Amino acid sequence: MYVPEPISKLIESFVRLPGIGPKSAQRLAMFVLRMEEEDVMDFAKALVRAKRDLRTCSVCGNITDQDPCYICSDSKRDRSTICVVQDTRDLMAMERTREFNGLYHVLHGAISPIEGIGPEQLKIPDLLRRLGDETVKELILATNPNIEGEATAMYLSKLVRSFGLKVTRIAHGLPVGGDLEYADEVTLTKALEGRREL
Amino acid sequence: MYVPEPISKLIESFVRLPGIGPKSAQRLAMFVLRMEEEDVMDFAKALVRAKRDLRTCSVCGNITDQDPCYICSDSKRDRSTICVVQDTRDLMAMERTREFNGLYHVLHGAISPIEGIGPEQLKIPDLLRRLGDETVKELILATNPNIEGEATAMYLSKLVRSFGLKVTRIAHGLPVGGDLEYADEVTLTKALEGRREL
Repeated sequence: MYVPEPISKLIESFVRLPGIGPKSAQRLAMFVLRMEEEDVMDFAKALVRAKRDLRTCSVCGNITDQDPCYICSDSKRDRSTICVVQDTRDLMAMERTREFNGLYHVLHGAISPIEGIGPEQLKIPDLLRRLGDETVKELILATNPNIEGEATAMYLSKLVRSFGLKVTRIAHGLPVGGDLEYADEVTLTKALEGRREL
Repeated sequence: MYVPEPISKLIESFVRLPGIGPKSAQRLAMFVLRMEEEDVMDFAKALVRAKRDLRTCSVCGNITDQDPCYICSDSKRDRSTICVVQDTRDLMAMERTREFNGLYHVLHGAISPIEGIGPEQLKIPDLLRRLGDETVKELILATNPNIEGEATAMYLSKLVRSFGLKVTRIAHGLPVGGDLEYADEVTLTKALEGRREL
Protein backbone atom coordinates (compact mmCIF):
# COMPACT_ATOMS: atom_id res chain seq x y z
CA MET A 1 0.00 0.00 0.00
CA TYR A 2 1.29 3.44 -0.92
CA VAL A 3 1.36 5.97 1.91
CA PRO A 4 2.72 9.47 1.22
CA GLU A 5 6.32 9.57 2.41
CA PRO A 6 5.93 12.42 4.94
CA ILE A 7 3.27 10.43 6.76
CA SER A 8 5.08 7.09 6.61
CA LYS A 9 8.22 8.75 8.00
CA LEU A 10 6.23 10.17 10.90
CA ILE A 11 4.60 6.80 11.57
CA GLU A 12 8.08 5.22 11.62
CA SER A 13 9.25 7.78 14.16
CA PHE A 14 6.29 7.09 16.44
CA VAL A 15 6.74 3.31 16.16
CA ARG A 16 10.28 3.67 17.53
CA LEU A 17 8.87 4.93 20.85
CA PRO A 18 8.26 2.37 23.59
CA GLY A 19 4.74 0.97 23.89
CA ILE A 20 3.58 2.38 20.56
CA GLY A 21 2.66 -0.17 17.91
CA PRO A 22 1.91 0.41 14.21
CA LYS A 23 -1.80 1.15 14.73
CA SER A 24 -1.19 3.65 17.53
CA ALA A 25 1.59 5.24 15.49
CA GLN A 26 -0.79 5.67 12.58
CA ARG A 27 -3.42 7.21 14.85
CA LEU A 28 -0.86 9.60 16.37
CA ALA A 29 0.49 10.60 12.97
CA MET A 30 -3.03 11.35 11.73
CA PHE A 31 -3.63 13.37 14.86
CA VAL A 32 -0.50 15.43 14.16
CA LEU A 33 -1.92 16.33 10.73
CA ARG A 34 -5.00 17.77 12.41
CA MET A 35 -2.99 19.70 15.05
CA GLU A 36 -2.36 23.44 14.80
CA GLU A 37 0.86 24.15 12.89
CA GLU A 38 2.18 26.10 15.87
CA ASP A 39 1.72 23.12 18.22
CA VAL A 40 3.49 20.79 15.81
CA MET A 41 6.41 23.22 15.59
CA ASP A 42 6.51 23.39 19.38
CA PHE A 43 6.58 19.60 19.53
CA ALA A 44 9.46 19.41 17.04
CA LYS A 45 11.37 22.11 18.90
CA ALA A 46 10.76 20.39 22.25
CA LEU A 47 12.27 17.18 20.85
CA VAL A 48 15.35 18.93 19.52
CA ARG A 49 15.83 21.04 22.65
CA ALA A 50 15.36 18.13 25.04
CA LYS A 51 18.03 16.19 23.20
CA ARG A 52 20.43 19.11 22.77
CA ASP A 53 20.12 21.02 26.02
CA LEU A 54 19.84 18.24 28.55
CA ARG A 55 22.76 16.36 30.05
CA THR A 56 23.40 14.36 33.19
CA CYS A 57 24.55 16.25 36.28
CA SER A 58 28.26 15.59 36.85
CA VAL A 59 27.63 15.29 40.59
CA CYS A 60 24.49 13.19 41.01
CA GLY A 61 23.66 11.88 37.53
CA ASN A 62 20.25 13.62 37.40
CA ILE A 63 19.03 14.87 34.03
CA THR A 64 19.51 18.60 33.91
CA ASP A 65 19.91 21.69 31.76
CA GLN A 66 22.55 23.17 34.08
CA ASP A 67 25.57 21.52 35.71
CA PRO A 68 25.51 20.88 38.64
CA CYS A 69 21.78 20.28 38.57
CA TYR A 70 19.23 22.42 40.42
CA ILE A 71 19.15 19.98 43.34
CA CYS A 72 22.92 19.70 43.77
CA SER A 73 23.31 23.48 43.54
CA ASP A 74 20.38 24.28 45.86
CA SER A 75 21.86 25.62 49.12
CA LYS A 76 18.59 24.94 50.96
CA ARG A 77 18.90 21.19 50.57
CA ASP A 78 20.28 18.96 53.28
CA ARG A 79 23.76 17.89 52.16
CA SER A 80 24.09 15.27 54.87
CA THR A 81 21.65 12.83 53.21
CA ILE A 82 21.97 11.19 49.81
CA CYS A 83 19.15 9.18 48.35
CA VAL A 84 20.30 6.59 45.82
CA VAL A 85 17.87 5.84 42.99
CA GLN A 86 18.14 3.76 39.84
CA ASP A 87 16.72 6.23 37.39
CA THR A 88 15.93 9.91 36.88
CA ARG A 89 12.24 9.02 36.73
CA ASP A 90 12.59 7.54 40.22
CA LEU A 91 14.16 10.81 41.35
CA MET A 92 11.20 12.68 39.89
CA ALA A 93 8.82 10.34 41.72
CA MET A 94 10.69 11.01 45.00
CA GLU A 95 10.56 14.75 44.39
CA ARG A 96 6.82 14.61 43.88
CA THR A 97 6.39 13.45 47.50
CA ARG A 98 7.90 16.78 48.68
CA GLU A 99 9.08 14.80 51.73
CA PHE A 100 12.74 14.53 50.92
CA ASN A 101 15.04 17.52 51.18
CA GLY A 102 18.43 15.88 50.75
CA LEU A 103 20.52 15.15 47.69
CA TYR A 104 20.27 12.32 45.19
CA HIS A 105 22.51 9.92 43.39
CA VAL A 106 21.20 8.35 40.20
CA LEU A 107 22.82 4.98 39.46
CA HIS A 108 21.38 4.72 35.94
CA GLY A 109 20.41 1.10 36.41
CA ALA A 110 20.63 -1.76 38.88
CA ILE A 111 22.80 -4.83 39.22
CA SER A 112 21.32 -7.52 36.98
CA PRO A 113 23.39 -10.64 36.21
CA ILE A 114 20.70 -11.75 33.72
CA GLU A 115 21.08 -8.57 31.66
CA GLY A 116 24.82 -8.59 32.22
CA ILE A 117 24.80 -5.39 34.28
CA GLY A 118 27.43 -5.47 37.02
CA PRO A 119 28.34 -2.78 39.56
CA GLU A 120 30.96 -1.43 37.16
CA GLN A 121 28.25 -0.30 34.68
CA LEU A 122 26.54 1.83 37.35
CA LYS A 123 27.54 5.24 38.67
CA ILE A 124 28.95 3.70 41.85
CA PRO A 125 32.51 5.14 41.69
CA ASP A 126 30.96 8.64 41.53
CA LEU A 127 28.92 7.80 44.62
CA LEU A 128 31.99 6.62 46.56
CA ARG A 129 33.79 9.82 45.58
CA ARG A 130 30.89 11.86 46.95
CA LEU A 131 30.87 9.90 50.19
CA GLY A 132 34.59 10.64 50.59
CA ASP A 133 34.34 14.35 49.73
CA GLU A 134 31.12 15.46 51.30
CA THR A 135 29.74 15.61 54.80
CA VAL A 136 27.29 12.81 54.18
CA LYS A 137 25.78 11.22 57.27
CA GLU A 138 23.03 9.07 55.79
CA LEU A 139 22.68 7.10 52.61
CA ILE A 140 19.10 6.19 51.71
CA LEU A 141 18.92 3.26 49.31
CA ALA A 142 15.81 3.86 47.20
CA THR A 143 16.43 1.34 44.44
CA ASN A 144 13.36 -0.50 43.18
CA PRO A 145 11.75 -3.13 45.46
CA ASN A 146 12.50 -5.98 43.08
CA ILE A 147 15.33 -8.50 42.77
CA GLU A 148 17.74 -6.21 40.94
CA GLY A 149 17.01 -3.26 43.19
CA GLU A 150 17.41 -5.32 46.36
CA ALA A 151 20.65 -6.83 45.10
CA THR A 152 21.95 -3.35 44.31
CA ALA A 153 20.92 -2.09 47.75
CA MET A 154 22.63 -5.03 49.47
CA TYR A 155 25.76 -4.57 47.37
CA LEU A 156 25.91 -0.85 48.16
CA SER A 157 25.25 -1.29 51.87
CA LYS A 158 28.22 -3.64 52.12
CA LEU A 159 30.40 -1.47 49.88
CA VAL A 160 29.95 1.72 51.91
CA ARG A 161 30.27 0.07 55.31
CA SER A 162 33.82 1.42 55.73
CA PHE A 163 32.59 5.02 55.49
CA GLY A 164 30.81 4.62 58.85
CA LEU A 165 27.56 6.07 57.52
CA LYS A 166 24.00 5.42 58.51
CA VAL A 167 22.72 3.34 55.60
CA THR A 168 18.96 2.96 55.25
CA ARG A 169 16.63 1.22 52.85
CA ILE A 170 13.20 2.62 52.00
CA ALA A 171 10.48 0.51 53.60
CA HIS A 172 8.43 -2.14 51.88
CA GLY A 173 5.41 0.04 51.94
CA LEU A 174 5.87 -0.25 48.20
CA PRO A 175 4.21 -3.20 46.55
CA VAL A 176 6.94 -5.81 46.03
CA GLY A 177 7.68 -6.39 42.38
CA GLY A 178 6.42 -2.92 41.57
CA ASP A 179 8.19 0.05 40.17
CA LEU A 180 9.14 3.24 41.99
CA GLU A 181 8.15 5.31 39.02
CA TYR A 182 4.52 4.27 39.28
CA ALA A 183 4.14 4.48 43.05
CA ASP A 184 1.70 7.04 44.35
CA GLU A 185 2.93 9.85 46.58
CA VAL A 186 1.37 8.53 49.78
CA THR A 187 2.89 5.06 49.43
CA LEU A 188 6.23 6.60 48.61
CA THR A 189 6.01 8.90 51.64
CA LYS A 190 5.24 5.88 53.88
CA ALA A 191 8.21 4.11 52.40
CA LEU A 192 10.43 7.08 53.23
CA GLU A 193 9.15 7.34 56.80
CA GLY A 194 9.53 3.60 57.43
CA ARG A 195 13.16 3.37 56.32
CA ARG A 196 15.26 1.14 58.53
CA GLU A 197 18.94 0.95 59.27
CA LEU A 198 20.77 -1.91 57.56
CA MET B 1 8.57 19.72 41.74
CA TYR B 2 11.16 21.30 39.51
CA VAL B 3 11.69 19.59 36.17
CA PRO B 4 14.18 21.12 33.71
CA GLU B 5 12.21 23.15 31.20
CA PRO B 6 13.33 21.29 28.05
CA ILE B 7 11.98 18.05 29.50
CA SER B 8 8.73 19.53 30.85
CA LYS B 9 8.06 21.10 27.43
CA LEU B 10 8.56 17.75 25.76
CA ILE B 11 6.28 16.02 28.28
CA GLU B 12 3.62 18.68 27.57
CA SER B 13 3.89 18.00 23.85
CA PHE B 14 3.44 14.26 24.34
CA VAL B 15 0.47 14.77 26.68
CA ARG B 16 -1.36 16.63 23.91
CA LEU B 17 -1.43 13.46 21.80
CA PRO B 18 -4.51 11.23 22.07
CA GLY B 19 -4.31 8.31 24.49
CA ILE B 20 -1.12 9.52 26.16
CA GLY B 21 -1.41 10.48 29.82
CA PRO B 22 1.13 12.26 32.04
CA LYS B 23 2.97 9.06 33.06
CA SER B 24 3.28 7.76 29.51
CA ALA B 25 4.37 11.21 28.36
CA GLN B 26 7.11 11.22 30.98
CA ARG B 27 8.27 7.75 29.94
CA LEU B 28 8.31 8.78 26.27
CA ALA B 29 10.20 11.99 27.02
CA MET B 30 12.82 10.07 28.98
CA PHE B 31 13.10 7.61 26.13
CA VAL B 32 13.76 10.48 23.73
CA LEU B 33 16.69 11.56 25.90
CA ARG B 34 18.23 8.12 25.49
CA MET B 35 17.63 8.02 21.71
CA GLU B 36 20.38 8.70 19.19
CA GLU B 37 20.58 12.41 18.32
CA GLU B 38 20.10 11.55 14.65
CA ASP B 39 16.85 9.68 15.34
CA VAL B 40 15.49 12.57 17.41
CA MET B 41 16.30 14.99 14.59
CA ASP B 42 14.54 12.66 12.13
CA PHE B 43 11.50 12.60 14.41
CA ALA B 44 11.41 16.40 14.64
CA LYS B 45 11.83 16.72 10.87
CA ALA B 46 9.10 14.13 10.25
CA LEU B 47 6.69 16.16 12.38
CA VAL B 48 7.44 19.40 10.57
CA ARG B 49 7.35 17.79 7.12
CA ALA B 50 4.13 15.89 7.77
CA LYS B 51 2.45 19.11 8.80
CA ARG B 52 3.95 21.27 6.03
CA ASP B 53 3.96 18.95 3.02
CA LEU B 54 0.70 17.08 3.42
CA ARG B 55 -2.68 18.35 2.29
CA THR B 56 -6.00 16.79 1.33
CA CYS B 57 -6.49 15.74 -2.27
CA SER B 58 -8.76 18.24 -4.02
CA VAL B 59 -10.55 15.38 -5.77
CA CYS B 60 -11.13 12.66 -3.17
CA GLY B 61 -10.11 14.22 0.17
CA ASN B 62 -7.35 11.66 0.81
CA ILE B 63 -4.24 12.87 2.63
CA THR B 64 -1.48 13.36 0.11
CA ASP B 65 1.80 15.10 -0.71
CA GLN B 66 0.75 15.66 -4.34
CA ASP B 67 -2.52 16.96 -5.78
CA PRO B 68 -4.43 15.03 -7.12
CA CYS B 69 -3.34 12.18 -4.87
CA TYR B 70 -1.55 9.06 -6.11
CA ILE B 71 -4.83 7.12 -6.29
CA CYS B 72 -6.77 9.79 -8.20
CA SER B 73 -3.87 10.26 -10.63
CA ASP B 74 -3.20 6.53 -11.13
CA SER B 75 -4.33 5.64 -14.66
CA LYS B 76 -4.45 1.92 -13.77
CA ARG B 77 -7.29 2.37 -11.33
CA ASP B 78 -10.89 1.70 -12.24
CA ARG B 79 -12.60 5.10 -12.57
CA SER B 80 -16.10 3.62 -12.70
CA THR B 81 -16.21 2.75 -8.99
CA ILE B 82 -15.96 5.13 -6.03
CA CYS B 83 -15.68 3.81 -2.49
CA VAL B 84 -16.92 6.30 0.12
CA VAL B 85 -15.14 6.16 3.50
CA GLN B 86 -15.34 8.35 6.60
CA ASP B 87 -11.66 8.81 7.23
CA THR B 88 -8.23 8.54 5.60
CA ARG B 89 -7.40 5.72 8.01
CA ASP B 90 -10.38 3.80 6.63
CA LEU B 91 -9.01 4.37 3.14
CA MET B 92 -5.66 2.98 4.30
CA ALA B 93 -7.42 -0.06 5.78
CA MET B 94 -9.21 -0.64 2.46
CA GLU B 95 -5.95 -0.30 0.54
CA ARG B 96 -4.31 -2.91 2.76
CA THR B 97 -6.79 -5.50 1.48
CA ARG B 98 -5.36 -5.04 -2.07
CA GLU B 99 -8.82 -6.07 -3.24
CA PHE B 100 -10.17 -2.73 -4.36
CA ASN B 101 -8.91 -1.06 -7.51
CA GLY B 102 -11.33 1.84 -7.86
CA LEU B 103 -11.24 5.38 -6.54
CA TYR B 104 -12.13 6.72 -3.11
CA HIS B 105 -14.00 9.58 -1.59
CA VAL B 106 -13.17 10.59 1.99
CA LEU B 107 -16.06 12.30 3.79
CA HIS B 108 -13.95 13.40 6.78
CA GLY B 109 -16.61 12.34 9.25
CA ALA B 110 -20.11 10.94 9.48
CA ILE B 111 -23.52 12.42 10.18
CA SER B 112 -23.92 12.66 13.95
CA PRO B 113 -26.73 14.79 15.39
CA ILE B 114 -25.31 14.24 18.90
CA GLU B 115 -21.99 15.79 17.95
CA GLY B 116 -23.77 18.38 15.80
CA ILE B 117 -22.31 17.07 12.54
CA GLY B 118 -24.75 17.41 9.66
CA PRO B 119 -24.29 16.54 5.96
CA GLU B 120 -23.09 20.10 5.29
CA GLN B 121 -19.92 19.55 7.38
CA LEU B 122 -18.92 16.53 5.25
CA LYS B 123 -17.34 16.49 1.81
CA ILE B 124 -20.65 15.59 0.17
CA PRO B 125 -20.87 18.46 -2.40
CA ASP B 126 -17.45 17.35 -3.75
CA LEU B 127 -18.81 13.82 -4.10
CA LEU B 128 -21.90 15.01 -6.01
CA ARG B 129 -19.66 17.03 -8.33
CA ARG B 130 -17.59 13.93 -9.04
CA LEU B 131 -20.69 11.87 -9.76
CA GLY B 132 -21.79 14.50 -12.28
CA ASP B 133 -18.40 14.84 -14.00
CA GLU B 134 -17.05 11.36 -14.09
CA THR B 135 -18.06 8.08 -15.63
CA VAL B 136 -18.96 6.54 -12.30
CA LYS B 137 -21.10 3.40 -12.41
CA GLU B 138 -20.94 2.15 -8.82
CA LEU B 139 -20.79 3.90 -5.47
CA ILE B 140 -19.66 1.65 -2.59
CA LEU B 141 -20.69 3.02 0.79
CA ALA B 142 -17.97 1.90 3.22
CA THR B 143 -18.81 4.10 6.18
CA ASN B 144 -18.45 2.49 9.62
CA PRO B 145 -21.00 -0.14 10.68
CA ASN B 146 -22.31 1.97 13.57
CA ILE B 147 -25.21 4.41 14.00
CA GLU B 148 -23.44 7.41 12.48
CA GLY B 149 -21.97 5.40 9.61
CA GLU B 150 -25.33 3.76 8.83
CA ALA B 151 -27.13 7.10 8.93
CA THR B 152 -24.56 8.58 6.56
CA ALA B 153 -24.86 5.61 4.19
CA MET B 154 -28.68 5.88 4.19
CA TYR B 155 -28.51 9.63 3.61
CA LEU B 156 -26.06 9.24 0.70
CA SER B 157 -27.97 6.40 -0.92
CA LYS B 158 -31.09 8.60 -1.06
CA LEU B 159 -29.17 11.67 -2.16
CA VAL B 160 -27.51 10.04 -5.18
CA ARG B 161 -30.61 8.19 -6.36
CA SER B 162 -31.15 10.69 -9.20
CA PHE B 163 -27.74 9.83 -10.71
CA GLY B 164 -28.99 6.36 -11.62
CA LEU B 165 -25.93 4.63 -10.16
CA LYS B 166 -25.51 1.23 -8.63
CA VAL B 167 -25.18 2.04 -4.91
CA THR B 168 -23.85 -0.72 -2.61
CA ARG B 169 -23.07 -1.03 1.09
CA ILE B 170 -20.22 -3.19 2.40
CA ALA B 171 -21.52 -6.38 4.01
CA HIS B 172 -22.24 -6.82 7.69
CA GLY B 173 -21.41 -10.12 9.28
CA LEU B 174 -19.06 -11.96 11.55
CA PRO B 175 -15.41 -10.91 11.46
CA VAL B 176 -13.18 -13.61 10.02
CA GLY B 177 -11.47 -15.51 12.82
CA GLY B 178 -14.24 -14.43 15.17
CA ASP B 179 -16.39 -16.61 17.36
CA LEU B 180 -20.14 -17.09 16.97
CA GLU B 181 -20.44 -17.43 20.73
CA TYR B 182 -19.17 -13.92 21.35
CA ALA B 183 -20.95 -12.20 18.47
CA ASP B 184 -23.66 -9.73 19.47
CA GLU B 185 -27.24 -10.35 18.39
CA VAL B 186 -27.35 -7.54 15.84
CA THR B 187 -24.21 -8.72 14.06
CA LEU B 188 -25.44 -12.30 14.07
CA THR B 189 -28.81 -11.22 12.68
CA LYS B 190 -27.05 -9.27 9.92
CA ALA B 191 -24.82 -12.27 9.21
CA LEU B 192 -27.89 -14.49 8.89
CA GLU B 193 -29.71 -12.01 6.66
CA GLY B 194 -26.67 -11.67 4.42
CA ARG B 195 -26.14 -15.42 4.05
CA ARG B 196 -25.18 -16.58 0.60
CA GLU B 197 -25.59 -19.83 -1.25
CA LEU B 198 -22.45 -21.93 -1.45
